[in-house]
Amino acid sequence: MIKITLPDGSVREFEKGITPMGVAKSISEGFARNVISAKFNTQTIESSTPLHTNGSLVLFTWKDKEGKTAFWHSTSHIVAQAIEELYPGVKLTIGPAIDNGFYYDVDLPDGTISEKDFPTIEKKALEIARGKHDFKMKSVTKEDALKFYKKEGNEYKVELIENLEDGTITFCDHDTFTDLCRGGHIPNTGIVKAIKILSVAGAYWRGDENKPQLTRIYGISFPKQKELTAYLALVEEAKKRDHRKLGKELELFTFSQKVGQGLPLWLPKGAALRERLEQFLKKAQKKAGYEMVVTPHIGQKELYVTSGHYAKYGEDSFQPIKTPKMDEEFLLKPMNCPHHCEVYNFKPHSYKDLPKRFAEFGTVYRYEQSGELHGLTRVRGFTQDDAHIFCTSDQLADEFKNVIDLTLYVLGSLGFDNFTAQVSVRDLNNPDKYIGESENWDKAESAIINAAKEKGLDYIIESGEAAFYGPKLDFMIKDALGRSWQLGTIQVDYNLPERFDLSYKGSDNELHRPIMIHRAPFGSMERFIALLLEHTGGNFPLWLIPEQAIVLPVSEKHEKYAEKVLKSLENSEIRALIDNRNETVGKKIREAELNKIPFMLIVGENDEKANTISVRRHGGDDLGAITTEQFTDLVTKEINSTLKSF
Amino acid sequence: MIKITLPDGSVREFEKGITPMGVAKSISEGFARNVISAKFNTQTIESSTPLHTNGSLVLFTWKDKEGKTAFWHSTSHIVAQAIEELYPGVKLTIGPAIDNGFYYDVDLPDGTISEKDFPTIEKKALEIARGKHDFKMKSVTKEDALKFYKKEGNEYKVELIENLEDGTITFCDHDTFTDLCRGGHIPNTGIVKAIKILSVAGAYWRGDENKPQLTRIYGISFPKQKELTAYLALVEEAKKRDHRKLGKELELFTFSQKVGQGLPLWLPKGAALRERLEQFLKKAQKKAGYEMVVTPHIGQKELYVTSGHYAKYGEDSFQPIKTPKMDEEFLLKPMNCPHHCEVYNFKPHSYKDLPKRFAEFGTVYRYEQSGELHGLTRVRGFTQDDAHIFCTSDQLADEFKNVIDLTLYVLGSLGFDNFTAQVSVRDLNNPDKYIGESENWDKAESAIINAAKEKGLDYIIESGEAAFYGPKLDFMIKDALGRSWQLGTIQVDYNLPERFDLSYKGSDNELHRPIMIHRAPFGSMERFIALLLEHTGGNFPLWLIPEQAIVLPVSEKHEKYAEKVLKSLENSEIRALIDNRNETVGKKIREAELNKIPFMLIVGENDEKANTISVRRHGGDDLGAITTEQFTDLVTKEINSTLKSF
Repeated sequence: MIKITLPDGSVREFEKGITPMGVAKSISEGFARNVISAKFNTQTIESSTPLHTNGSLVLFTWKDKEGKTAFWHSTSHIVAQAIEELYPGVKLTIGPAIDNGFYYDVDLPDGTISEKDFPTIEKKALEIARGKHDFKMKSVTKEDALKFYKKEGNEYKVELIENLEDGTITFCDHDTFTDLCRGGHIPNTGIVKAIKILSVAGAYWRGDENKPQLTRIYGISFPKQKELTAYLALVEEAKKRDHRKLGKELELFTFSQKVGQGLPLWLPKGAALRERLEQFLKKAQKKAGYEMVVTPHIGQKELYVTSGHYAKYGEDSFQPIKTPKMDEEFLLKPMNCPHHCEVYNFKPHSYKDLPKRFAEFGTVYRYEQSGELHGLTRVRGFTQDDAHIFCTSDQLADEFKNVIDLTLYVLGSLGFDNFTAQVSVRDLNNPDKYIGESENWDKAESAIINAAKEKGLDYIIESGEAAFYGPKLDFMIKDALGRSWQLGTIQVDYNLPERFDLSYKGSDNELHRPIMIHRAPFGSMERFIALLLEHTGGNFPLWLIPEQAIVLPVSEKHEKYAEKVLKSLENSEIRALIDNRNETVGKKIREAELNKIPFMLIVGENDEKANTISVRRHGGDDLGAITTEQFTDLVTKEINSTLKSF
Repeated sequence: MIKITLPDGSVREFEKGITPMGVAKSISEGFARNVISAKFNTQTIESSTPLHTNGSLVLFTWKDKEGKTAFWHSTSHIVAQAIEELYPGVKLTIGPAIDNGFYYDVDLPDGTISEKDFPTIEKKALEIARGKHDFKMKSVTKEDALKFYKKEGNEYKVELIENLEDGTITFCDHDTFTDLCRGGHIPNTGIVKAIKILSVAGAYWRGDENKPQLTRIYGISFPKQKELTAYLALVEEAKKRDHRKLGKELELFTFSQKVGQGLPLWLPKGAALRERLEQFLKKAQKKAGYEMVVTPHIGQKELYVTSGHYAKYGEDSFQPIKTPKMDEEFLLKPMNCPHHCEVYNFKPHSYKDLPKRFAEFGTVYRYEQSGELHGLTRVRGFTQDDAHIFCTSDQLADEFKNVIDLTLYVLGSLGFDNFTAQVSVRDLNNPDKYIGESENWDKAESAIINAAKEKGLDYIIESGEAAFYGPKLDFMIKDALGRSWQLGTIQVDYNLPERFDLSYKGSDNELHRPIMIHRAPFGSMERFIALLLEHTGGNFPLWLIPEQAIVLPVSEKHEKYAEKVLKSLENSEIRALIDNRNETVGKKIREAELNKIPFMLIVGENDEKANTISVRRHGGDDLGAITTEQFTDLVTKEINSTLKSF
């Protein structure tokens, strides 16, 4: 008999050789029907792998990330079989699961695969899946494995096997298909009910551009057809909301080949939007007792050697800037904290001065490979809404709560109300991993947890996830497409105060080390605006949107009146423009809709007579004819309802 | 007979051998008494140098820059003689005039010169001066010159002479003193009535740290004692107002050795002051039709090769930033214009879109040798209040006038009302030096001159001073200490639109090249704030100053009431603080005076009873007891009187 420990901590005894599926059935037949994959101790195994020793077992269903990985990886086997049958002579290489689906890299001897071939591949793969073939793992000697693929003439698999150690090599069979594979499959092909080939792309063997180019086939699969349909709809919606597309259409930002990849240029509407966001946060921060500072975008290399950032970013980021005499070296700043430590060090501090809260919209630069750049979410230069709080150990709890308040206010004002928090604490079994006194850690960790509790956050505690220099709290936001984003980290730091020898004179007249808190509710202005674009589809909150209203004269006759309306709106600080073109009102409305302008103010004969405007909301609601004063009230009310005062 | 052309264009005939002084006397004896130096054609000569050919002659008095140069250089001879007499065995090296006075570098065989020796040197030098010795130039053969200084054992002068060509070597004699000298003296020593030795410093021979260290003696001299007294008072005042000193005392900015020299860190009060200045300009610019943009602080090297900035700044500035794969090169931006050209190029433009006015508070980085850094006026990173206007040739005149209006408004709101303008136009004799069509230059130059005329500027036209890429207008500001500063350049540019291939579609449906205007009313935020600090001595205009008022409770009893007053001021958006320390009101007032706080609000028994505050102005004026509402009105009125709306 062996003892199996389950995730709830319970221990059950089974006969040696029991499979994970056997264990699942012993729990409940219903549960077992959903189990598709398993982990034994630290190893991913099949649900059919016999167990021979005591150990911990986790069973996964489609709902788990690990279940999806097994599901998609198994589908790549099915698709590979379909391709082998459809394209005789094809050479298979590797086919892993990825974040959303899977791919398989293949060497097609002649011809290529294009979009029009996708239905055929999907049909063939589904036919195979419907055969309900079991996935069966088997061990193979290195010699046999090499013999098998040499006979097939597949030099890729041969190369892979040559790098493996004899005794560790396994093949996976299903139906008539065999593949070199480490394992991690679902029980059988029948579980896969919907398969979609998404795209093809070129990919070099082993990512090396000197090696042969292969065809990478991307796909995704689901246990139910309706899940595939929902997924494809979401992808479609995400495409429409892609911030790169919207950013261009709404003229918010652009990129220039000459300036360089990953370095956004903010166009007037985007720069004004950024400025509104910054002023909004500055105002709240002022109330919360922050002081703005301004620091340069470079610093001497020694500054980052002192901070430890050179060790972290030095080799992989922008290289040092030399000077004509070659005796000085500067770095583009990857973070603002070293500069803020030097601001703190400007003069000696007393405990009466603390907390000091230095804030800066600081633009930082970090090199990213060009292939990893993506719109505004992965850039080479971005502006952090950064701040560093320098406080005493006794002040930490209150400061933490204040930062949570500020973050909740900021995110709430921007329509993010679906989030959870993750508190990352240290691994108590590994005390040497962390700097700072254990007593301070205890205090900080319980301060964070109490703050999260007190502020009513929906939080989880992750042990061992703290940075070596302090515990932290992250906000995880769910956007309108159900995707998760990390925003608004609050990080305690015992390290930099040490490295920069920060101090304050206590009431005991002795020098003490302050604690530092790093925080940024938006994180990066670039990434946040990208996220906000995709979350709102460009329909920003009224207080933030570039143009709040557009005046549409029905004909040339009403232009003068339209100008008068515009003037009156501008005097009320409403951001409005006018469409004076010689076009039909219908066309003007359609374009205003595309430009996401919240209010269309149509002015014609009757309006001019009655001194009113006919208001149409973005999306189509007709609010009827009202005066500009009434309209101004309406806008003000709507803004006040989202933008509460802090 | 020779023909001498005078600056007013008149031509007079004189006998060969006439001296400049002779010419001066022929004009008027009174004028001649003031003449101290002369220029014949392009060469500086003595007023006693005989003239043998036709040519142009300019006569200088103390009021001219050239006159001062001759005066101070001549004084360096006098001081050198004094030192030779006081320090036997001293070796003289060089003694030029500088911007304010002169220096002489000497090798003192034993002992040093310190401040306590200055009066002795001054006394001896004045004694010599009073001898009214003529300065007499004479030609010397190289052989004789070397012999003279070898005999004296002066290896420095020997080295200098060895690098001169025989036939060009001159000595200057006065009294018993002889010096190797190119010329440019006043008639005689008697004109020098006041001499002040200012300081001594170490200086390497020929500026090379591997060569012997010399003693540099700085001094200044004047034709009247009262001019020296006034100058020293000004220097004293300038020291008090030194922006580096005030910046530290008022906690506006600091520098950090770790971050690097010449890279200012703006402390909370300074950052807030900058923000107020920026918001002030942003508001005016918005009304003037500017649009803000935001661009990165780096760009690919190719961007600056395209713009021509790499050729200009490349070698002498911060060196290119390489990336880990070494295949990309970036530069810290020395200017914002290339980025704004790329913003313009974001999409095609029609003549209907123009003018486009892109503004940015853009931080740029330019390397300066550490010895040349000076507080905020000479830094390695600074923020320009930059904007670029892209317009048609027909729009240029109006745009130029609008920029002048904006600049006058900005400078006027900051208390600069003493200025002149310089219009730099092309040299018509040198048309090949300039790019762009001659017709456009004519149009632009007359547009600028007409704009200056129309706006009532006190301007001068400098021919040949235009940049190769376009004419410009500079504002020359006189500060409270009478010093001149260049601020607010408006520059026309035909070059960058060409280099970046900028275009717009005209009403003729053809593509045309727009004209670019660069402008920055402040120039650089750093330099401007330095200037403003020295101009105002830290007593900034009320709308701008960090703290507008301080509440001073007479005793602990009135703290509560003082807090109430503070709250009420804050609600009226008055920047105020409180001094609750257990100190006498007298001491609190003295410190508030030092901190340049415009209003001290003293609250005691009577105030609390009457619900008033006793207002004292910075400098001492007692405004009596008034209510906080009355005080708020007073502040608002004062602000509105300086800060007119644009």
